[in-house]
Amino acid sequence: MILLFGSAGYIGGKFRTWLEASRIPHVCVNRKDVDLNRPGSLRSLIQRKAVQLLINCAGYTGKPNVDSCEDHKEECLFGNAILPGLIARECREAGIDWGHVSSGCIFTGNNEGRGFGETDQPNFDFRHDNCSWYSGTKALGEEILAAETNCYIWRIRIPFEEENNPRNYLGKLCRYPRLLDAENSLTHLGEFVREALDMVQRKVPKGVYNMTQPGSITTREIVNLMATAGILRHQPVFFQNEEEFMRQAARTPRSNCVLSVEKAIGAGCRLTSIRDKVREVCGEWKP
Amino acid sequence: MILLFGSAGYIGGKFRTWLEASRIPHVCVNRKDVDLNRPGSLRSLIQRKAVQLLINCAGYTGKPNVDSCEDHKEECLFGNAILPGLIARECREAGIDWGHVSSGCIFTGNNEGRGFGETDQPNFDFRHDNCSWYSGTKALGEEILAAETNCYIWRIRIPFEEENNPRNYLGKLCRYPRLLDAENSLTHLGEFVREALDMVQRKVPKGVYNMTQPGSITTREIVNLMATAGILRHQPVFFQNEEEFMRQAARTPRSNCVLSVEKAIGAGCRLTSIRDKVREVCGEWKP
Repeated sequence: MILLFGSAGYIGGKFRTWLEASRIPHVCVNRKDVDLNRPGSLRSLIQRKAVQLLINCAGYTGKPNVDSCEDHKEECLFGNAILPGLIARECREAGIDWGHVSSGCIFTGNNEGRGFGETDQPNFDFRHDNCSWYSGTKALGEEILAAETNCYIWRIRIPFEEENNPRNYLGKLCRYPRLLDAENSLTHLGEFVREALDMVQRKVPKGVYNMTQPGSITTREIVNLMATAGILRHQPVFFQNEEEFMRQAARTPRSNCVLSVEKAIGAGCRLTSIRDKVREVCGEWKP
Repeated sequence: MILLFGSAGYIGGKFRTWLEASRIPHVCVNRKDVDLNRPGSLRSLIQRKAVQLLINCAGYTGKPNVDSCEDHKEECLFGNAILPGLIARECREAGIDWGHVSSGCIFTGNNEGRGFGETDQPNFDFRHDNCSWYSGTKALGEEILAAETNCYIWRIRIPFEEENNPRNYLGKLCRYPRLLDAENSLTHLGEFVREALDMVQRKVPKGVYNMTQPGSITTREIVNLMATAGILRHQPVFFQNEEEFMRQAARTPRSNCVLSVEKAIGAGCRLTSIRDKVREVCGEWKP
């Protein structure tokens, strides 16, 4: 039995759909269902339902975007740093493995073209005093989990998929009046969910895994692919540079970064390279 | 009615004794008494008891010392950053004032002899990547409270008092086999509790207040004063320097710092200068 924590969220919903479609037994749990203040409450649920794997998709992302985390610091810190720590303890005590959906947003830049790997220290976090509150809390969450041995930490970045959705990056690019051109790694949600569950199935060693499409892509390139596929109705306007973007459209710095997925590929993950995947998604776009 | 949150702790216990001795109506609450996970639970208690002021003395300090926070990251982050945020929200929604016991340990050094004031940014925190987990969480707690307008943030440092106690600094100096010589500000607990409550009574403007004895003192000076008063039975041995201390006795960096109490003094607080107070306490020492 799989316990899906945070099944009501965007990422959690994708896991749920996948598990349902694959007829994999699972139980959906959200924060309001468990009194996390009471030690052992999650563990007793784990035991009662004979759970063998927990997947934590819960987290605080901020709506409509990461700026909103600056006004909800405590909730954001709880969701991204405390909650993983609480879940870690409950899973450790219950003696089960689990997976945590983390984020690549604890990095900035492309690491001189190599992309950031799993042994690189975050460079967009409180410790570098250059980050959003959101990225800071995500990095603290990983610090809190650093000693766990029964845990997959899956780092995703900028989720996209075929179905339009307020959280889908391609949908955002259609909606935003002005865009910032930046180089990033992206995660196709369907492939991520499939490969994360497959890693568990194949008993790949626990640890941190960057789970993005191989390679990187710029905003302009994506927009061009979308325009070619006919799914972009307007001619997008770009900010001149990050300074203009920060001045006019953002309150807190954004992570733009490239991750290396060598480790995941080496562990047998099948991840389509970013340009091919964006092209494919554009071809199957459901507005 | 005053709600004393964290009355079972060291600082909370001092407030409790003071309130009892002064026959000030109060209700003692600890974390296990409230389901903080449920929004409004503390607020309903505030309303039921007609609370007009909340004092938060709860926090995670680590036992026997700050090193232990490195092994309890999540609990420490919860107690020092999330909990203040939760209490802030409940007090804001209940429309009452409150006071939060914070710590000067978010600073290091003496600020070129001036001591750190309330407008100085922390320099021993995650953002400077030079701190203990404990100090990092305390600084995040202050960041989370930064926008509150109904809150006193009282920063104390290295509590000491007449009665021996595992947490009393003078008692620690008696017990520790080797000491690190460092310059620090210290807080006499009795004066702090008296002056904090008095500030509220006198309706001093809300905000951050450093609440230590004026001036600074070195470990060697304190030890000499204790020896003169006959309350130190052995000849203390000092580490050669901070490097030796870190190598042999500590896992995580310690804050040694001097705070300026100009703001508190300007607001009418009666705080005895550090040397006089240490001498006085030595004269009234209760082993």
